[in-house]
Amino acid sequence: MSNPSILILAGDGIGPEVMGEVKKIITWYGDKRGLQFDVSEDLVGGSAYDVHGTPLHDDTMAKAQEADAVLLGAVGGPKYDVLDFSVKPERGLLRLRKEMDLYSNLRPAQCFDALADFSSLKKDVVAGLDIMIVRELTSGIYFGEPRGIITEGNERVGINTQRYTESEIARVARSAFELAKRRGNKVCSMEKANVMESGILWREVVQKIHDEEYPEVELSHMYADAGAMQLCRWPKQFDVIVTDNLFGDLLSDAAAMLTGSLGMLPSASLGAPMANGRPKALYEPVHGSAPDIAGQNKANPIACILSFAMALRYSFDKGDEATRLEQAVEKVLADGVRTADLLAGEGVTPVSTTEMGDKIVEAL
Amino acid sequence: MSNPSILILAGDGIGPEVMGEVKKIITWYGDKRGLQFDVSEDLVGGSAYDVHGTPLHDDTMAKAQEADAVLLGAVGGPKYDVLDFSVKPERGLLRLRKEMDLYSNLRPAQCFDALADFSSLKKDVVAGLDIMIVRELTSGIYFGEPRGIITEGNERVGINTQRYTESEIARVARSAFELAKRRGNKVCSMEKANVMESGILWREVVQKIHDEEYPEVELSHMYADAGAMQLCRWPKQFDVIVTDNLFGDLLSDAAAMLTGSLGMLPSASLGAPMANGRPKALYEPVHGSAPDIAGQNKANPIACILSFAMALRYSFDKGDEATRLEQAVEKVLADGVRTADLLAGEGVTPVSTTEMGDKIVEAL
Ligand SMILES: CC(C)[C@H](C(=O)O)[C@@H](O)C(=O)O
Ligand SMILES: CC(C)[C@H](C(=O)O)[C@@H](O)C(=O)O
Repeated sequence: MSNPSILILAGDGIGPEVMGEVKKIITWYGDKRGLQFDVSEDLVGGSAYDVHGTPLHDDTMAKAQEADAVLLGAVGGPKYDVLDFSVKPERGLLRLRKEMDLYSNLRPAQCFDALADFSSLKKDVVAGLDIMIVRELTSGIYFGEPRGIITEGNERVGINTQRYTESEIARVARSAFELAKRRGNKVCSMEKANVMESGILWREVVQKIHDEEYPEVELSHMYADAGAMQLCRWPKQFDVIVTDNLFGDLLSDAAAMLTGSLGMLPSASLGAPMANGRPKALYEPVHGSAPDIAGQNKANPIACILSFAMALRYSFDKGDEATRLEQAVEKVLADGVRTADLLAGEGVTPVSTTEMGDKIVEAL
Repeated sequence: MSNPSILILAGDGIGPEVMGEVKKIITWYGDKRGLQFDVSEDLVGGSAYDVHGTPLHDDTMAKAQEADAVLLGAVGGPKYDVLDFSVKPERGLLRLRKEMDLYSNLRPAQCFDALADFSSLKKDVVAGLDIMIVRELTSGIYFGEPRGIITEGNERVGINTQRYTESEIARVARSAFELAKRRGNKVCSMEKANVMESGILWREVVQKIHDEEYPEVELSHMYADAGAMQLCRWPKQFDVIVTDNLFGDLLSDAAAMLTGSLGMLPSASLGAPMANGRPKALYEPVHGSAPDIAGQNKANPIACILSFAMALRYSFDKGDEATRLEQAVEKVLADGVRTADLLAGEGVTPVSTTEMGDKIVEAL
């Protein structure tokens, strides 16, 4: 039997640098734990545009469909701001999400003990925080038609459409309930059912899936604006949050920032099971391409490394190995090893991107 | 010449209680400062539904159109959760906003020195915070057509439409630039131009209004998810934020919560000038109807009182009198007088809703 395959799309900005450290980790797992992967690489985002004139070449799309897991670095940069909407770096990422049908985006917001001081929130508000935001990723206003800029009378009108079908809501709700069962057994669903009909349907379907399939999980509903407030006030009240594509974009970023450790946070985007039983999957750090520090060996590779840990857990059914990697990261942090984004406090050892990768390999 | 008119719509939950204290303030201004208002009252939200079967009677709508300023308490409550979407308490508020064409919603997020400890954020992150969120309030996904829940094939689909015309964007942008000129001279505009065409048009029009009419104001653009992050990280980087109806809903609530003083925050919703030169205007606290504490003389009336201060400033051109009222509130807080929502710390005097109103009148 051939090895499971990983497609690496390092992307733009700091993407290639942080991915370099992930490759060290992959190699370590091959050498030391007998976990061999067939790794291939390709382009996405601005770097794909530079070569192919499109942020995602059809061949790359086809490879992603075949891969057991896709690891993505980051896309975008000021150089590409002038490009037309249809070929912007982000379109490459959105095409991957849509065509692989990665409907369930898992965004853990976790506060690492060693880093609690980096939060703008008071220590007792964030210490030990561990919530999971499940964001619908392939529908809603990101993809709904009609969309565009049209002319009506003598002015232009910008249009986007939020559309959710019952089955789109049901499948992401199931994925949230499944996760909750393995965590704190609590789901909070967020929408704006008080102003949007799509929110009414969302609430109704989430409730129905709960009542019929997951009655043992505690379910609550919250308006998304109140949710944004409550995340800022007392985030520990949440376990799993499930919400739509657009609310999930804002709420998961706010939650990520609360932890103070943006350079630390991974994400997984999962779709339906493939023939081999593995879900279609793409893993990427929550942070962006950080063009200001790209190429300087300064970026924090941990979010990308922890994204690989999520791949071990969700794609390759190696929860133990994922935990091993997460613990290695925690150990290195507890030892005071820090990249430039986290340089403060006493007893701290500043390291570069590559040194951080090496330290984590050592800790493994 | 007759006195300027105020229509009071106290609404549901704690609305009537907090509005009771505003009435004391209005009386004080009549008696002591010669500012006479013709005050009338009517129903909105659940309390209107209970009497008329609609959350806003046409007669009330007509009165609101005539009034020089509308003061609203709060709408909603669990009792009305079962109502059909079309007659929910919120629809009354949304109808007022839409038919009065109150396109510019001003939401100050201000941290009161005496209350900085109530924030979940570290003191240095919020102390002295003073930002103004300008939220577009009459368009976008709140009102766009088509909308509703339809059946397609054998399943239901929830649909809402985001629509922004150039002139809708231009007018709210102007209102943000005008405010910035009287404040820190900085505007940050937030959208998702990287995924939504309506965001592309938004960014373009805001930039154009800036370049043609307000080149002296500093303008920046930020994606709304990054904006949510930056609000949580270092809110003091902002002066005026301008954004659409839905993003504004989440971002202004998050910003409000950051200050830790939700019971303190007022808002103004302004439209075009009427024949007498005053803008159409509605003033309301940011907090909701708080059904859990309604009727207990426990609610904090300050947000509603400060909403009246905004009315003095924006509808009645009495900036000095507004400042007087704001200073009276600050003095009372500095003296340690607190309603139940803010009871912590030393040297604090707990008071009821009505006592708080009395203290503020005294301080005036
Ligand atoms: C890059 C962008 C298209 C993307 C999004 O809006 O989904 C990003 O913000 C994210 O959250 O992954
Ligand atoms: C009550 C509700 C309709 C309203 C909104 O969503 O606009 C509220 O949240 C607000 O922000 O004023």
